[in-house]
Amino acid sequence: MWRPILFVLLKSEPDAKKTAALLGWLQMMGFNVQTHHNEEATVLELTGDNASLDVAMLRALDIVAEVRPDWVGEKPAPPYSQPDGIVAAGGVKFGGGDLQLIAGPCAVESWRQLSCIAQSVKAAGATLLRGGAFKPRTSPYAFQGLAKEGIKLLLAAKELTGLPVVSEITELSQLPLFENIDVIQVGARNMQNFELLKELGRVGKPILLKRGAANTIKELLLSAEYILAGGNEQVILCERGIRTFESYTKNTLDLSAVPALKALSPLPVLVDPSHGTGRAALVTPLALAAVAAGADGLLIEVHNSPECALCDGEQAITPDEFRSLAHSARDIWPYRYRY
Amino acid sequence: MWRPILFVLLKSEPDAKKTAALLGWLQMMGFNVQTHHNEEATVLELTGDNASLDVAMLRALDIVAEVRPDWVGEKPAPPYSQPDGIVAAGGVKFGGGDLQLIAGPCAVESWRQLSCIAQSVKAAGATLLRGGAFKPRTSPYAFQGLAKEGIKLLLAAKELTGLPVVSEITELSQLPLFENIDVIQVGARNMQNFELLKELGRVGKPILLKRGAANTIKELLLSAEYILAGGNEQVILCERGIRTFESYTKNTLDLSAVPALKALSPLPVLVDPSHGTGRAALVTPLALAAVAAGADGLLIEVHNSPECALCDGEQAITPDEFRSLAHSARDIWPYRYRY
Amino acid sequence: MWRPILFVLLKSEPDAKKTAALLGWLQMMGFNVQTHHNEEATVLELTGDNASLDVAMLRALDIVAEVRPDWVGEKPAPPYSQPDGIVAAGGVKFGGGDLQLIAGPCAVESWRQLSCIAQSVKAAGATLLRGGAFKPRTSPYAFQGLAKEGIKLLLAAKELTGLPVVSEITELSQLPLFENIDVIQVGARNMQNFELLKELGRVGKPILLKRGAANTIKELLLSAEYILAGGNEQVILCERGIRTFESYTKNTLDLSAVPALKALSPLPVLVDPSHGTGRAALVTPLALAAVAAGADGLLIEVHNSPECALCDGEQAITPDEFRSLAHSARDIWPYRYRY
Amino acid sequence: MWRPILFVLLKSEPDAKKTAALLGWLQMMGFNVQTHHNEEATVLELTGDNASLDVAMLRALDIVAEVRPDWVGEKPAPPYSQPDGIVAAGGVKFGGGDLQLIAGPCAVESWRQLSCIAQSVKAAGATLLRGGAFKPRTSPYAFQGLAKEGIKLLLAAKELTGLPVVSEITELSQLPLFENIDVIQVGARNMQNFELLKELGRVGKPILLKRGAANTIKELLLSAEYILAGGNEQVILCERGIRTFESYTKNTLDLSAVPALKALSPLPVLVDPSHGTGRAALVTPLALAAVAAGADGLLIEVHNSPECALCDGEQAITPDEFRSLAHSARDIWPYRYRY
Repeated sequence: MWRPILFVLLKSEPDAKKTAALLGWLQMMGFNVQTHHNEEATVLELTGDNASLDVAMLRALDIVAEVRPDWVGEKPAPPYSQPDGIVAAGGVKFGGGDLQLIAGPCAVESWRQLSCIAQSVKAAGATLLRGGAFKPRTSPYAFQGLAKEGIKLLLAAKELTGLPVVSEITELSQLPLFENIDVIQVGARNMQNFELLKELGRVGKPILLKRGAANTIKELLLSAEYILAGGNEQVILCERGIRTFESYTKNTLDLSAVPALKALSPLPVLVDPSHGTGRAALVTPLALAAVAAGADGLLIEVHNSPECALCDGEQAITPDEFRSLAHSARDIWPYRYRY
Repeated sequence: MWRPILFVLLKSEPDAKKTAALLGWLQMMGFNVQTHHNEEATVLELTGDNASLDVAMLRALDIVAEVRPDWVGEKPAPPYSQPDGIVAAGGVKFGGGDLQLIAGPCAVESWRQLSCIAQSVKAAGATLLRGGAFKPRTSPYAFQGLAKEGIKLLLAAKELTGLPVVSEITELSQLPLFENIDVIQVGARNMQNFELLKELGRVGKPILLKRGAANTIKELLLSAEYILAGGNEQVILCERGIRTFESYTKNTLDLSAVPALKALSPLPVLVDPSHGTGRAALVTPLALAAVAAGADGLLIEVHNSPECALCDGEQAITPDEFRSLAHSARDIWPYRYRY
Repeated sequence: MWRPILFVLLKSEPDAKKTAALLGWLQMMGFNVQTHHNEEATVLELTGDNASLDVAMLRALDIVAEVRPDWVGEKPAPPYSQPDGIVAAGGVKFGGGDLQLIAGPCAVESWRQLSCIAQSVKAAGATLLRGGAFKPRTSPYAFQGLAKEGIKLLLAAKELTGLPVVSEITELSQLPLFENIDVIQVGARNMQNFELLKELGRVGKPILLKRGAANTIKELLLSAEYILAGGNEQVILCERGIRTFESYTKNTLDLSAVPALKALSPLPVLVDPSHGTGRAALVTPLALAAVAAGADGLLIEVHNSPECALCDGEQAITPDEFRSLAHSARDIWPYRYRY
Repeated sequence: MWRPILFVLLKSEPDAKKTAALLGWLQMMGFNVQTHHNEEATVLELTGDNASLDVAMLRALDIVAEVRPDWVGEKPAPPYSQPDGIVAAGGVKFGGGDLQLIAGPCAVESWRQLSCIAQSVKAAGATLLRGGAFKPRTSPYAFQGLAKEGIKLLLAAKELTGLPVVSEITELSQLPLFENIDVIQVGARNMQNFELLKELGRVGKPILLKRGAANTIKELLLSAEYILAGGNEQVILCERGIRTFESYTKNTLDLSAVPALKALSPLPVLVDPSHGTGRAALVTPLALAAVAAGADGLLIEVHNSPECALCDGEQAITPDEFRSLAHSARDIWPYRYRY
């Protein structure tokens, strides 16, 4: 797994004795140190538990020019928190060898809507139910979600169907409402809401962290690190499309993120082709592609009558289409790329 | 000013009598209605105070197929909150005909650092002082700011120099600490933290809203609308670079945003060439360009010893360089593009 | 299939008689005309053989404000050239129900290199052989290809293995050298080299047209139209990644292009995960994803010793890895998304 | 000026004697060699005339693992062609201390149009006349330019006004027609048409090279290097906007390119705010910004009746607007950033 490290840049022509002393001390502190020299500078690359290091003290040394946290190139770092890559939520396991299908409406709109969709996605093979109660919307005049009432309806649908439930949090103060929600989702717009991530690091519950529309793969891992560093190792990553110049789709779904995240981290990886394309007709082919690429699961928006959905209706598929998607995805599952 | 509007899509071949009745009712409700026909559909475009409209009721009408909030193309909408475009903060005015220069360190690090920078930027012509106490950082291992202590130091620097101060908020719960801060900054990563924006709409204080790195000009205006709609008309917009494929600069500073925002809104517009380029050597030429393009002010990171800054040191300029920048910017000011 | 059309904007309040006359004349000329009215203007949307229309004459009419060619939204246009979507090349068929695997080195380097790779990819299941003789390189100091000599070696490899061959053209004057090449490739950098495309419209040979790194799906179709309009209907489209802010991969492979191109055009669609990711370790998972999404074939760079390749070695896989890729791709083929 | 260099990666634990011998030989050959060691490898960084080096021979040495051309980080390389950064064209000088204003229509449409615009831009202060005879257009059904006839009209306008003329080449075979054209423009779509660039390296005429919409600043310099390496040192660079997710403007004008190109190269730098914004209302503020940032000149599209232009009419300004732009630009010129 990629891990942040510290780079310590020494001043030019550092005193040899002091340098040796510093190296000895760092190794004694448990750091793995690699030294890089070039004509102009010497850089020490430190991996290990940097949380216990006094950076200010390091900076104060007279042979040190600069200290900064950064990332290892492509090499694995020594053990830290070591999440095992299997996240259990309400009876199902992400990353444990089974395909997880999270399906449901973008927003919870009413009991009639939700109960109907919940039952049909369960029948069609969904293993978890999703539904938004708090909706971050670009315009203040767009539908903002049913809030507390939406959470209640979602929990009722959980009872009705037995499916574990996933819902998005948009503000710290909502946290108590999520007590019985099985997986807390952090949406793309909040991927770098670091205060929220820190708090979720102290929660004993799976967190589904979506990649921001303008964030790199490494930034997604650094945001995950905010949660892991707090002690919560139940993090599930999710690719949901990035912002590019292409305007035919709402976002550009970056399926390279699947093998990239698998190479850099043990965490389970999901794909959301609904937000990733923004067009219902593209959801199923991209869902199959995600499974073939080795994703551990899918997040699919399903609506009984997409054209009337209060938000993002143009990307929702019907329960019938979802049944067909789930069937095809399970057909491909045995032939997927394995990590 | 661009304003969100509602589009009402009628079902095909709507009953003529019912359509006439609907139009009459909407006009009676104070809406300005434009009707668009094409071969396939009739669309009503509504501008006016849509807050008072029951969307669900509209949707329930049997001639209505769909209702959705959206934006007017390029035409001005009727009066709403009508901010006058001048925002007063601690004795200075944004958008009132004077060039405002906000300068200071990225992060408040110590009293010695801050007091020294504050005095030198004042002497060099800064009209407000900036300094971050809460720093949103990509990595959990990077310096996160001095928090409450940073705010205290900033207020002390305000007393020392007489300069009004600007600082960034990253979480709702920090709000009480900002009581004596003159301008509350919402950073790029929080441009779509809608819960925060809603709360700032209820605050009687200028808000400096920065454009997100992956957000369009219109999305910036919609985020501003979250604050305006809450009743706070003291919003200052700020262009600070967007994320593109170009890697020589940290972001691509989009100076077209200046005339675009001026055309679409009366709000004052600032430019931040420090984050916008990420390279100290590029800050001054881009600052002059921003002034020539008609920006109302600049946000400049200044550090007494940039190479030792705890964050973003590579983009900070020295107090001496800032003095020269301020001088050149004031030389160009009389020849700038006028709106 | 999407087709370019003409939009004719009438002046405001056009004379009714003249408008009727114009409409009658356009229909008589064989155009399919749709009329759009709104409060401000009347727009005629013309589909049909606009090649035969005198645009200047139309513009000169006193009721016409503007004439411009553009694209139909999402609706199919009437028959033009009507490619049937099956392209035959040297005994194989693209779009005919079989998976086509084009494999080989980025650049032809020597007979020893090429003959060795050609035989191993054939044994591993490739159906065509690729190899570049003319290489467009960002730097003038990078290896530029063996040119004429490279074409000769490729033809020798064709004879040796019986595989049809694919090679890239970078300049019109090279055309005579491609006489015995089975498929002429137009690379991403030349997707909008319109003079080259026009000439290839007059060639009786399949053209593999790659999407430019900064071009939209619709622009790719318009470039294809340059070839189709010249009378050559043997066009194969290829997605190979677009340029985005993500830096972990060389490009962002946009697999949404597969269903999008299938919806908008009957032409066969290939995917190149080698250029699309720029990393050998990502090629196989993305290749499987492309097949699952319904692509008609793959373009894969294979090299006997990737680390010594003269160009793009970091994205080439070995013949052994290709064998495994081909095997897995054929396993998924029966379960792919069907159009 | 940035220059391509070679990196030679030695195998791990190279024989010390052989390494010393290699270093001695390289220095003897005139190379400037820097050696970088780290735990895993030794890399030699070579600057100097690498054209005279036999790369294959280097590769064959048993201590060498890999050889590849690349770029120096940020440091200047030793003298090569050394363009002095002043390009003379038809009596005017780019980069010589005067502001150059190139103005004229996007496309030459008729003598009446061209002569009228040419005379008005001259009167308004233009120092060169532009006009396209060969137009690269996204759609094959869009106006493609008057070709040979357009060049003739442009030369007639040159005679009429005395202004030197600039026109775009789109294909090698057009070159003889450009004999009396003062500056040959290579458009954004051809920035990486390397065969064309190589040929222009053998022409004794100024080349105006525009940055591609998806190309980085360094790629622009490498394309310039294709021309310089051929012996033609009269290269003028031009920023004209890059492709991003922002849709309000046609492109995002990247004014950071001005100081970046000035830092990395001695070549003159122009800015084209017409293509850079795609909106007439944005052209003047961005033109002033470009001058303030230190550009050596501007490229402005002017049309007598923009709304009737056969191409790109929405970004052209009128002769009157150009007069005002030229006046304001000259006002700012003395206060611009200096390099």
